[in-house]
Amino acid sequence: MPNYFILIKGRKFCAKLTSMGKKLTKREEDYSKWYNELVVKADLAESSGVRGCMVIKPYGYAIWEKMQAQLDKMFKETGHENAYFPLFIPKSYLSKEASHVEGFAKECAVVTHYRLKNAEDGSGIIVDPDAKLEEELIVRPTSETIIWDTYRRWIQSYRDLPLLVNQWANVVRWEMRTRLFLRTAEFLWQEGHTAHATEKEAIAEAEQMMHVYAEFAEEYMGVPVIKGTKTASERFAGAVETYCIEALMQDGKALQAGTSHFLGQNFAKAFDVKFANKEGKQEHVWATSWGVSTRLMGALIMTHSDDNGLVLPPKLAPIQVVIVPIYRGEDQLDAISERVAPLVKELRSKGISVKYDNRDTHKPGFKFNEYELKGVPVRLAIGQRDMENGTYEVARRDTFEKETVAADGIVGKIEFLLEDIQKNIHKKALEHRENHITEVNSYEEFKEVLENKGGFLSAHWDGTPETEERIKEETKATIRCIPIDAEEEEGSCMVSGKPSLKRVLFAKAY
Amino acid sequence: MPNYFILIKGRKFCAKLTSMGKKLTKREEDYSKWYNELVVKADLAESSGVRGCMVIKPYGYAIWEKMQAQLDKMFKETGHENAYFPLFIPKSYLSKEASHVEGFAKECAVVTHYRLKNAEDGSGIIVDPDAKLEEELIVRPTSETIIWDTYRRWIQSYRDLPLLVNQWANVVRWEMRTRLFLRTAEFLWQEGHTAHATEKEAIAEAEQMMHVYAEFAEEYMGVPVIKGTKTASERFAGAVETYCIEALMQDGKALQAGTSHFLGQNFAKAFDVKFANKEGKQEHVWATSWGVSTRLMGALIMTHSDDNGLVLPPKLAPIQVVIVPIYRGEDQLDAISERVAPLVKELRSKGISVKYDNRDTHKPGFKFNEYELKGVPVRLAIGQRDMENGTYEVARRDTFEKETVAADGIVGKIEFLLEDIQKNIHKKALEHRENHITEVNSYEEFKEVLENKGGFLSAHWDGTPETEERIKEETKATIRCIPIDAEEEEGSCMVSGKPSLKRVLFAKAY
Repeated sequence: MPNYFILIKGRKFCAKLTSMGKKLTKREEDYSKWYNELVVKADLAESSGVRGCMVIKPYGYAIWEKMQAQLDKMFKETGHENAYFPLFIPKSYLSKEASHVEGFAKECAVVTHYRLKNAEDGSGIIVDPDAKLEEELIVRPTSETIIWDTYRRWIQSYRDLPLLVNQWANVVRWEMRTRLFLRTAEFLWQEGHTAHATEKEAIAEAEQMMHVYAEFAEEYMGVPVIKGTKTASERFAGAVETYCIEALMQDGKALQAGTSHFLGQNFAKAFDVKFANKEGKQEHVWATSWGVSTRLMGALIMTHSDDNGLVLPPKLAPIQVVIVPIYRGEDQLDAISERVAPLVKELRSKGISVKYDNRDTHKPGFKFNEYELKGVPVRLAIGQRDMENGTYEVARRDTFEKETVAADGIVGKIEFLLEDIQKNIHKKALEHRENHITEVNSYEEFKEVLENKGGFLSAHWDGTPETEERIKEETKATIRCIPIDAEEEEGSCMVSGKPSLKRVLFAKAY
Repeated sequence: MPNYFILIKGRKFCAKLTSMGKKLTKREEDYSKWYNELVVKADLAESSGVRGCMVIKPYGYAIWEKMQAQLDKMFKETGHENAYFPLFIPKSYLSKEASHVEGFAKECAVVTHYRLKNAEDGSGIIVDPDAKLEEELIVRPTSETIIWDTYRRWIQSYRDLPLLVNQWANVVRWEMRTRLFLRTAEFLWQEGHTAHATEKEAIAEAEQMMHVYAEFAEEYMGVPVIKGTKTASERFAGAVETYCIEALMQDGKALQAGTSHFLGQNFAKAFDVKFANKEGKQEHVWATSWGVSTRLMGALIMTHSDDNGLVLPPKLAPIQVVIVPIYRGEDQLDAISERVAPLVKELRSKGISVKYDNRDTHKPGFKFNEYELKGVPVRLAIGQRDMENGTYEVARRDTFEKETVAADGIVGKIEFLLEDIQKNIHKKALEHRENHITEVNSYEEFKEVLENKGGFLSAHWDGTPETEERIKEETKATIRCIPIDAEEEEGSCMVSGKPSLKRVLFAKAY
């Protein structure tokens, strides 16, 4: 591989072009290729030898862990407890709720046997035909059925309600076309499953969790989202109402970032879950379920990152600050390390995660590239001139701005930057989103904007699945949601001309 | 159900005998039944509708979460990062390491199809025969094979080593006889998988993780363990050496609480994982793997609990302190609540988890039973006399000791008790363990002690798998480990009379 030279603070460094060092495809050139390359090069995830299943690499998993920790805290603050239910679902359970099995049957991993053995002809290991299961087991695509089968035992009286349970788990949906984080056969997620005495309370719970997800997306991921409900055809299989949060990626495509379902009494009836109310009368329980998954990683990456690599919100960055020494020889490195040590300690005591990268196997230029690619929000460099002047060179990842800061103000500067970057990337994403919601009033205009600008299209629709389906077939755009804060506005459907009372949001979507 | 009366602080309460209130089977009567009842009644776990799979209930899961958090911290402190690998393992991967597939083939859940469909005869949902996988997928029983297939891509140079990765995951082993937590078809665990440049470093890693596990067991679970190595026949399938920690339950049976394996170059060779050393020469990588599972819950429960229910070490108790108000009427409750509020706040600010149980649907006697059953380490009660005298009644779960403590000393008392209970239950378990290690010098004596006293039997063995197998067949005792601190002692095998250089530990085991 060829070497190239990089100029850092007036000094020339030689850096090897490794696979990591190679430039990313630009977003403008090929957004999809840019995404795929970025996920791999930033060490977030990669494809495995198992069709459609990914390996989440340590750096990617560290971001997911930060998301988990915050979501888990928010779930607990809203009264939920964690539990764990079986990976396998007997085929007969899945079949109990008609629309549910309809929705998931086509993409199920099915366990049919429980043993391997040596082939008698010596050809290797085979599935033992004598170890066939009486009833096939489905690897959970979601856990409503196995959980409601359990809730029948847990719920007898109104005193047992509400039951507010969450599970962190892996699930499998045999998708034909997969993409790292966005759509994989196996993915990690959380699924909340709650049981309530009244319809009103269950609806309030489903709405609450939509708001929790939105708060998490906005405040922690820095991803602006629109809250709304799904149309009947886009609803979760078995739900009465599906609430969702929808985000917009830089290429103008929408991404569903989380859903919360009001399930009515569908699962309670399918699994015969009743409770004695205060008057002693038996009633069916009301249900919700809600989930977000490793798909959020895709939303995070695609919302903020640029042609130089990942841009991470400080609140979810595994490394918030990296310090790179620029030196010649061990003596200089020792002197820098001595200067840096108390700073590292002070930052850690403030809960700021900091990495001092004193590897002597890589040059500063290589390190600069690496942390840019990995989206570390704040980078400090310290060389001989800084040692003499008592300064650091501080660079922020979101804007690439650099400045020289005196050592005695450095902690305050870092604290300011972490807050400011968090705000700034949200603001930038919000501006992009606001610039990409377009009101359209005819199907012609709809198609034209969809083709040339993308983003959300706010349009009147007659409320029928037929029109929705026609638009989807003709343009590939779907109704992402009926925004919860949509204003009443009399209009007529852009396709059928029939009356409509509010606009809905269309987009092409991931 | 009949009512019964309970006397609390001189006042008589009526308590309904609910299913929870029913007395546990006594350990002496039937230890195994006691365990099964306790796990269910203390709301830790229950069997599911899926053969051999358990539901971990919120209270049980909360204990597991505390274990996870501490272990995860210890793994990270020793330089490990988390990642996530696929649930499914292609059959051909599993077959690559000969002794590995030998060890796991008999208990594999096998995915053969990826779709369900409606039966043409209308009989319901069936597996779609057209959706047969070309190669069957195994639900991971452990992840060495899929991980080493990945490591081949991650490791090229000595600079990539050591690779120190851990995974928190579910695994499946199709066990025929299952017991909640101790042996289930699906269980939760962590599995560390590390790669090293040298044999010495890999062995040091395997040993380090055995010590980490031992420290966790002793310091957090309060479970004394013996560190040692397994005999060849008890080794992990594919390991060169298996290190383990062995605990002793109250019934005199041993329980393997964690294992750490030095895998030599077996998996590196099977999956062709080589690195360029500093001289540029290609070498196979050295490996370890190590894991603990939800089985630890079984060890925790069986080590400390008594005929009244669970006894939990304060460091892992989801609720460390419960406060139960004893009152007549809302006015009294309000006055107590007002007194208790600042105490709750102060305890929480010190990181102590406290529950103030002001439910008016249950009587104090019911609550006392419930928290005893659930092993809450410290219970406070406050009634009218305490209100007048400015006191609390404090009870500790491990010894049932009760005393009246002035409100101004209560926080210090609680802090003392939490530490003291942690120490005391470990001490008690250690005494039991020490009283149940018996040196035996003949096979007769061995059988006699095994039958009448149980526990660990320290005996000479000739080192052959034949003798080991004979003892196992005749007595059901296995060699639990060769203790790492076993002193050299010349002797002769109690069965064959052949020379032996150190004693090994036998026991019947879970």
